[in-house]
Amino acid sequence: MDAISVIRTKRDKGELSPEQIDWVIDAYTRGEVADEQMSALAMAILLNGMNREEISRWTAAMIASGERMDFSSLSRPTADKHSTGGVGDKITLPLAPLVAACGAAVPQLSGRGLGHTGGTLDKLESIPGWRALLSNEEMLNVLDTAGAVICAAGDGLAPADKKLYALRDVTGTVEAIPLIASSIMSKKIAEGTGSLVLDVKVGSGAFMKNIDDARELASTMVGLGTDHGVKTVALLTDMSTPLGLTAGNALEVRESIEVLAGGGPQDVIDLTLALAREMLAAAGIEDADPAKALADGSAMDVWRRMITAQGGDPDAALPVAREQHHVTAPSTGILTRLDAYDIGVAAWRLGAGRARKEDPVQAGAGIEIHAKPGEPVTAGQRLLTLHTDTPERFDYALQALTSAFDIAPTGTDYTPTPIVLDRIA
Amino acid sequence: MDAISVIRTKRDKGELSPEQIDWVIDAYTRGEVADEQMSALAMAILLNGMNREEISRWTAAMIASGERMDFSSLSRPTADKHSTGGVGDKITLPLAPLVAACGAAVPQLSGRGLGHTGGTLDKLESIPGWRALLSNEEMLNVLDTAGAVICAAGDGLAPADKKLYALRDVTGTVEAIPLIASSIMSKKIAEGTGSLVLDVKVGSGAFMKNIDDARELASTMVGLGTDHGVKTVALLTDMSTPLGLTAGNALEVRESIEVLAGGGPQDVIDLTLALAREMLAAAGIEDADPAKALADGSAMDVWRRMITAQGGDPDAALPVAREQHHVTAPSTGILTRLDAYDIGVAAWRLGAGRARKEDPVQAGAGIEIHAKPGEPVTAGQRLLTLHTDTPERFDYALQALTSAFDIAPTGTDYTPTPIVLDRIA
Repeated sequence: MDAISVIRTKRDKGELSPEQIDWVIDAYTRGEVADEQMSALAMAILLNGMNREEISRWTAAMIASGERMDFSSLSRPTADKHSTGGVGDKITLPLAPLVAACGAAVPQLSGRGLGHTGGTLDKLESIPGWRALLSNEEMLNVLDTAGAVICAAGDGLAPADKKLYALRDVTGTVEAIPLIASSIMSKKIAEGTGSLVLDVKVGSGAFMKNIDDARELASTMVGLGTDHGVKTVALLTDMSTPLGLTAGNALEVRESIEVLAGGGPQDVIDLTLALAREMLAAAGIEDADPAKALADGSAMDVWRRMITAQGGDPDAALPVAREQHHVTAPSTGILTRLDAYDIGVAAWRLGAGRARKEDPVQAGAGIEIHAKPGEPVTAGQRLLTLHTDTPERFDYALQALTSAFDIAPTGTDYTPTPIVLDRIA
Repeated sequence: MDAISVIRTKRDKGELSPEQIDWVIDAYTRGEVADEQMSALAMAILLNGMNREEISRWTAAMIASGERMDFSSLSRPTADKHSTGGVGDKITLPLAPLVAACGAAVPQLSGRGLGHTGGTLDKLESIPGWRALLSNEEMLNVLDTAGAVICAAGDGLAPADKKLYALRDVTGTVEAIPLIASSIMSKKIAEGTGSLVLDVKVGSGAFMKNIDDARELASTMVGLGTDHGVKTVALLTDMSTPLGLTAGNALEVRESIEVLAGGGPQDVIDLTLALAREMLAAAGIEDADPAKALADGSAMDVWRRMITAQGGDPDAALPVAREQHHVTAPSTGILTRLDAYDIGVAAWRLGAGRARKEDPVQAGAGIEIHAKPGEPVTAGQRLLTLHTDTPERFDYALQALTSAFDIAPTGTDYTPTPIVLDRIA
């Protein structure tokens, strides 16, 4: 077996054999297959595709490259959720404690932001004292104490994926559905959850810009989960406009706490409940009422226990950025578009995100949204408030916003996009 | 400008801009673009192609990565030839002195063998004392003294190509016509020749297995030469069976000397004369008679001067391998096929070639051919003689020969393949 023959097979539109896949993933993890060989293979996969058997084996080989977690000692069924990433996507924050309050164990291994989409861990780190990095034992303790835990994935899970993901990031091979699907699912399956709900985002602020690609990705991932014995469901959800009224780290934590307190923006509430119902159903919990758990404060109780168990102070004041800049409406009418990608890029440039893995993020930076698509606006009213500690970033952020929204004359018809576009199981 | 955006352009079937091409070649040569990025780009080029403008610019950028040679001080027009590589292809050895004897200056920068095709420098190094490595000044001196020089290309010519070639070799991206064409032509144009004849081999022993691919490669290279002001002509020539009656280093030198002495196998003579006529015409020399220069010993005189000027002794005995093994005809009839690739692999395994760049070669190793396709054979007669210094290699070499030839009943029709299949100018 050698790297060149594996590359040639895929280059020439052939099907990789199980032995070729197992060998190339293992040899790459060990450093025997070089980065330049794997990137050529990744490009051939991106352009020539993989069939379901190949993707399933590829995923299994990535899982086998590391350790697997085991939650079978827990008395409650586990439920897990993964979002493909969007702008203002703080849903994990209210969702994990909500689903735990309804009877599931929710071990939520999360990531940091890169590019225009924020990262769950970056958001939670704006809470004073909160720690993302837990040992496996600490993680099980938090899960036992609080019912939910949100923390960083350990280095031992799917190391092949970690190495390949970093390589794809610099070689223009991120956008390959077989590689995206196997990357996500190898980590999720290695985490050992019994059920998984996927939130596959569609629209300008998402990785998948059109619904056909999103559907293909969702079907591929549902198939992979099924092949590996994990009950998996996917919702395709709208990401043409940001979720809720905030994009940024502390800003999104504040909004999430509002939702847990029974308030918050309707789209965040709706998506949180839709995903909670799917997670509970996938975990086999049938008699729970997540809307009640939001209203009666039981989800908030789990949140407070979870934050406290990870060293955070749920009552501490959240960081606020030093400087603000307001963007106002240039005309009166109806806001028909507020672009998720543009808002995401602007929040990133304000300091909420990072350009390179090793960059720090600003806890207070980001964007507050004062009007959502479908709402009337008056010339001169505030549409957006930009927040940053480094005001020299305002100009660069504003450049991203030059065509971020459309205002149509009052009376123009506006058809709202539903938050859940499709369901794949 | 960044590597990922260049890769994405070609990945998404776009056309690379001149600025993108200039930047990526320069940045790769300087090490700013990493190997894993260039290999992803090479795979995207292999699968999505480049148009004529892109290939021309790519070639120009590779030329610009290093120095250019200048033969304008010579009083005679320069003529150069390049073969895409075959089995038993010793044509450069008689051809360079022959064309010099007819009035051209022939600066022939050559390579070493890798894989199943032999290298011109490896062959000449079997002549005691002969040196492949010359300074630019020594090279011009030999050219001036003898009229022809065959030597290694200096490190300064097209360093981007050198680096990219080594990368393609390990990443399954050798077989991309735009990259093959630009690799060959960047070196040839940087060498500064005024005219160039390409010998594009077609058949089992060649890089191009079918005539359509060979024709596309030839047209691309002729176009590149024309774009860069070099008069370029290509012959497509047969490589389904080895050239001449030998494959191996000293064995091929001996056969080349026979041709220079007015003898030798007819196919070697025919191809040498066909290429000589093209080179002389391309160089603008119209009244020469290469057949006469072979017959009257004037080509041999140039050979002796050229070998001597590079430290070799043209009268020294050539090395002979220590061990021989004969392959005999299993039946009586007509030899209808003798496969170039199989013979090339067997000669390579006997020690005539190398598996890795740093391996040594055996001067005496190789294969003598006692019957060519179209000739009658008798059961038990010698078909091949294998030569090696390391007889433990015989078995491995013989494995490559298990289906190397076909013998049909006497009286079977046999249509010979012409040596020159097409001409592209």
